[in-house]
Amino acid sequence: MKHVARSSSSASPIRPLRIAIFGFGTVGSSVARILTEARPEGLELTHIFNRNIDRKRADWVDASVLWSENANEILSAGVDVIVELAGGLEPAGLWIRRALEAGKSVVTANKKLIAYHGVELELLAAEKGGHIKYGAAVAGGIPVIPGLEQGLAGDKIERIEGILNGTCNFILNKMETGAEFETVLAEAQMLGTAEADPTEDVGGFDARAKLSILMRLAMRVHVNPDEIIPRPITEVAAIDFSYARDLGCTIRQISRAERVGGHIAASVGPTLVPLTSPIAWARGTANMVVVNGHYGGEVVFSGHGAGGQPTAVAVVSDLIALARGSRRIEIPSEQVTIGTESEVAHYIRFRVKDEPGIVAEIAGALAKEKININAIVQKPGFPQDDLPFVVTVEPCKSSALKRALDAIRKRDFNVADPLDLQMLP
Amino acid sequence: MKHVARSSSSASPIRPLRIAIFGFGTVGSSVARILTEARPEGLELTHIFNRNIDRKRADWVDASVLWSENANEILSAGVDVIVELAGGLEPAGLWIRRALEAGKSVVTANKKLIAYHGVELELLAAEKGGHIKYGAAVAGGIPVIPGLEQGLAGDKIERIEGILNGTCNFILNKMETGAEFETVLAEAQMLGTAEADPTEDVGGFDARAKLSILMRLAMRVHVNPDEIIPRPITEVAAIDFSYARDLGCTIRQISRAERVGGHIAASVGPTLVPLTSPIAWARGTANMVVVNGHYGGEVVFSGHGAGGQPTAVAVVSDLIALARGSRRIEIPSEQVTIGTESEVAHYIRFRVKDEPGIVAEIAGALAKEKININAIVQKPGFPQDDLPFVVTVEPCKSSALKRALDAIRKRDFNVADPLDLQMLP
Repeated sequence: MKHVARSSSSASPIRPLRIAIFGFGTVGSSVARILTEARPEGLELTHIFNRNIDRKRADWVDASVLWSENANEILSAGVDVIVELAGGLEPAGLWIRRALEAGKSVVTANKKLIAYHGVELELLAAEKGGHIKYGAAVAGGIPVIPGLEQGLAGDKIERIEGILNGTCNFILNKMETGAEFETVLAEAQMLGTAEADPTEDVGGFDARAKLSILMRLAMRVHVNPDEIIPRPITEVAAIDFSYARDLGCTIRQISRAERVGGHIAASVGPTLVPLTSPIAWARGTANMVVVNGHYGGEVVFSGHGAGGQPTAVAVVSDLIALARGSRRIEIPSEQVTIGTESEVAHYIRFRVKDEPGIVAEIAGALAKEKININAIVQKPGFPQDDLPFVVTVEPCKSSALKRALDAIRKRDFNVADPLDLQMLP
Repeated sequence: MKHVARSSSSASPIRPLRIAIFGFGTVGSSVARILTEARPEGLELTHIFNRNIDRKRADWVDASVLWSENANEILSAGVDVIVELAGGLEPAGLWIRRALEAGKSVVTANKKLIAYHGVELELLAAEKGGHIKYGAAVAGGIPVIPGLEQGLAGDKIERIEGILNGTCNFILNKMETGAEFETVLAEAQMLGTAEADPTEDVGGFDARAKLSILMRLAMRVHVNPDEIIPRPITEVAAIDFSYARDLGCTIRQISRAERVGGHIAASVGPTLVPLTSPIAWARGTANMVVVNGHYGGEVVFSGHGAGGQPTAVAVVSDLIALARGSRRIEIPSEQVTIGTESEVAHYIRFRVKDEPGIVAEIAGALAKEKININAIVQKPGFPQDDLPFVVTVEPCKSSALKRALDAIRKRDFNVADPLDLQMLP
């Protein structure tokens, strides 16, 4: 009766887990702060690694903690868990592999590394007897990863929709009130909410890494994040928010994965969201994940997706799980290819030099592909030589819509490329 | 290095966990359905107990499953886990104690039993080497219990606010559009959303049991649920929704616990909620829990709080955790007494026989207790001999407000007892 032996009473560890923090930035110092202030049972901060360590030293950290600029020194020391908070593929990956090779456990917030190499690192951990935990890698302070691993393990998740990037949500929320992208980006950069090079965030690369991690945990599929082609939010203009409002919607960066027939569709990009949908509620830099299960229906998680302290809570929670003797959760997952075909409603915004017959031509091109128009909206007050107007279409095959738009694109009434966005129901 | 031994690689159990379901109602049959259809690894349904078993037998259940009306027979059989879904204190408590005494594990959705006897049952399980898990006891399909146990373990939770009773939420949502309580209750009873005797739900007893479970997991305090005096939603009339809307609010049954200075305040009852607050979003029978952590800030969980399938997902997730060799999470908790003093804003609705000087008298009684009035709202169109109007007051000590209201109550301009409701900020 092996399971009986495994479920035997847990006892406190003989000595606490010795913890080394790699990366003493916003999150790393918040982790150290919680470990120092709250002193969760079974955890002892023993080492801190950072470059230019003298600039980083903090007097509120216990004097017994060893500060070092030498990663190898700490990796060779008698620590039990490496908390990796440096981010990026390397050298973080190198440190993590070395730690796992030595049978140590790892807690990380590194979404990129986990999205690309998570499966391989979990196998390595399993082989060497350690653990790798990454509850902080997606939606920092929101316990969506433990929620999926534990509380929804009994369901079959059919769809995930999320606001996974706080920077994009901040920018799009501000654009709702009429501001243009560049103005809001500059403000976000001044506030520290956006990076100097915002490509990872606004381009959707950060969100797709997180989406692929959630897909693995929720849908048990293993995808190469590069297969999800993100749409940047830079494509959206203030006028689109105005038209979206007329349609009872707003615009959010949505990361979405869904089982459609035998395959998985996944997308990241600006998307029209009905104002009545929970996903429209996320304000400021908030994150939100909506999970739809075959048995349990819709579950919504929301909160602070990033920031030092919320992310640190997720890291410390993972450390507490290790101290409690958390078992590895082996998530069986099959490698799948992302389907390029989906079937959703679309918002298409044209900018044209006005002349008779444009609507008829557009309607004709859509009809040729058997795509039904849902609404045509044109606001007054725009110049005749650069007139924005919107056509929404009922759910249709993305390949058919692409053919229709390619045909429309060729017509010289276009002043700019038509913008098409998915619409959530 | 004890923790290293504990974190050694997990292997699949040699044989699956043998599971007995006690209570084949809506939730029990949904659990059987998931175990039969999805066949999660490591779980085998072997026994089903119910009264009048012949009425219950379902042909989609594996022929190998033993159906019985004899609880003792199943408790003596070689099952590993009892899934208790009968509810109520007895005989559920008796079955669970017998199973735990025998070293078996228990998964239950029984909020009442866990609220009153959870600590004792956990101790018994620990002593005998079994587990007791109750992720389905609060907010059924929403993984708030694993979220608190795992994902927020690293935080210090300072406040919980929740919509924990779907029946009350359904009724109050309907009352928003002008219907009176009795009409909506009758509709809810017809739909099966409310029981024939709705006292447990509308009286707040169901919600206070759930709140006390959440308080233990989130705030690490152990309270006697009877110390939380619930306010029934029956006190609220359609006119209160109308006044609430004028104040930018709606009314929800809110269960709330908060650390205030050295003590814990807890309440359950109809409460004014700003329309801009996430807690106003819960529609229909939805549940919602908002947790506020010292480090991580606000986290919101929402979804289906009840219903066969969502609750069954929570039960099956607990079973999967047992099959994975889940460790017991020992939540240290101190027994505390609920404080009666809180300091929140209040909505007070009077019904008076109009005469000069009433507002002056009320204002005087409040001023005597140093309570500041925030707003006075009186809608036109009501009869002079039964005139409803509302006074809202700024956050004040509940004892001071009680003294002021006791003084006002004595005045014979009152046609009905003043209704005072807490207001969330």
